[in-house]
Amino acid sequence: MSNNSYTPPKVWQWDRESGGKFAAINRPIAGATHEKELPVGKHPLQLYSLATPNGVKVTLMLEELLEKGIKQAEYDAWIINILEGEQFSSGFVAANPNSKIPALVDYSTEKPTRVFESGSILLYLAEKFNAFLPTTPAERTECLNWLFWQMASAPILGGGFGHFYAYAPEKYEYPINRYTMEIKRQLDVLDKQLATNPFIAGEHYSIADMAIWPWYGALVKNEVYEAAEFIEAHSYKNVLRWCNQIAERPAVKRGRIVNKSWGEPSEQLRERHNANDFLTQTEDKRASE
Amino acid sequence: MSNNSYTPPKVWQWDRESGGKFAAINRPIAGATHEKELPVGKHPLQLYSLATPNGVKVTLMLEELLEKGIKQAEYDAWIINILEGEQFSSGFVAANPNSKIPALVDYSTEKPTRVFESGSILLYLAEKFNAFLPTTPAERTECLNWLFWQMASAPILGGGFGHFYAYAPEKYEYPINRYTMEIKRQLDVLDKQLATNPFIAGEHYSIADMAIWPWYGALVKNEVYEAAEFIEAHSYKNVLRWCNQIAERPAVKRGRIVNKSWGEPSEQLRERHNANDFLTQTEDKRASE
Repeated sequence: MSNNSYTPPKVWQWDRESGGKFAAINRPIAGATHEKELPVGKHPLQLYSLATPNGVKVTLMLEELLEKGIKQAEYDAWIINILEGEQFSSGFVAANPNSKIPALVDYSTEKPTRVFESGSILLYLAEKFNAFLPTTPAERTECLNWLFWQMASAPILGGGFGHFYAYAPEKYEYPINRYTMEIKRQLDVLDKQLATNPFIAGEHYSIADMAIWPWYGALVKNEVYEAAEFIEAHSYKNVLRWCNQIAERPAVKRGRIVNKSWGEPSEQLRERHNANDFLTQTEDKRASE
Repeated sequence: MSNNSYTPPKVWQWDRESGGKFAAINRPIAGATHEKELPVGKHPLQLYSLATPNGVKVTLMLEELLEKGIKQAEYDAWIINILEGEQFSSGFVAANPNSKIPALVDYSTEKPTRVFESGSILLYLAEKFNAFLPTTPAERTECLNWLFWQMASAPILGGGFGHFYAYAPEKYEYPINRYTMEIKRQLDVLDKQLATNPFIAGEHYSIADMAIWPWYGALVKNEVYEAAEFIEAHSYKNVLRWCNQIAERPAVKRGRIVNKSWGEPSEQLRERHNANDFLTQTEDKRASE
């Protein structure tokens, strides 16, 4: 980096070959690349997603709602293969003009309601079913503070640190230093908050935990980026305590495998259309053992 | 970048000299560096901020509420000098453990309520005063979709593109390409949305516009990063139309200069404690002409 002599051109040009591991799905323009409708199942809630951290946030919430016995939260979860560009179909773009998973369409409303951005979906479901968002004003505000904190912080983790540490075509020192500094600060923010609170927003498990756990939990448990040693994950003891505690929740065990198409067969459930799909998936696993 | 041969160490080490223009204020740890209480003025709402795009979001909203005649939205706005590390005072950390501006404390509640993250503050004020957030469920959801979109998108613009294009100690080709691609896509998302909607979330000016305008408006109007030519800002015609329209709002003219301590003297109002402060500021300007 020290011999660097790059001068940006007057006007940026799109080089379709650049971009590292995810070059094929990054574009400088928005909108649909092809005509294709989204599938629609039998439930009011239709989720179009993938089991990345942003996708998992929503399935944690839906499975948690079902765990509470809220039957109206039954949903169909369809997989969107982002490496194949399925987020650029006309149907997906209509559900989310930003072409990012997850997207939810609620068919129980007068007209179907599109909900996009994982934080917006969590808030939508929390308000719709009156769950996992505190109702007293002070606690509700604190929960939303942390929900928004996650939305603004995770792009530094995923799009910054993760990209440059794990995915970029070369290791670049300056961006790695920059983003490592910031994610270690973020982890310390969480660690201090969890030193005096069982959950992120206080006494109760909430959508703030569901937003933060899939990103920061995966990071400290070394489930993404293989960076646990590099960032000294063991030093964030309160984050680890909270991580492990959440991982034990039955809804989390189910939610984290929905729309997953990689890893161990026992940890994959490509599509989810009803509660029995998890049993089938477990049976498949047993059969293969 | 092609001769790059950096190998990250096993465990990352904090080099206090690295980090470019903002090295002095970036830290890998959270919490207070010094004991100091925040000042508290006479109004229920106390804002601790700076006129960066994230800070401006909130003053746009507060001035808009006052423009509607909502007197309970009167506020004191105190400047937080982030280059001097004032965001690391014990008082600021208590208001926002993430040490980022803006932070709001509402003293009108039973106990003072801390509100942090600009998106959370906008939502808090919209719900408190029942304004600038549509009340019909479908429109409310669409507005929140875009509010969350901004929270997740702007870190790519500010922390990614802006940093590497304008602030990093050297010009690095790969990150500049990566982030330029993404912010051009984001601008195209907005441009397509604004092709068929007067405002971001539909017919009415809302907190979604207030969140997006300070970042993407400043970018296309060449008020940050000097990148308008590089990104072909002129091509986002709907964004430009919307930008110019919003800039004409009286509340925007006031809100954008609150907690500003740089630029033209006529565009600075370091602290704001009541409506007359803007008149004083204008008189100061006249006196200096």
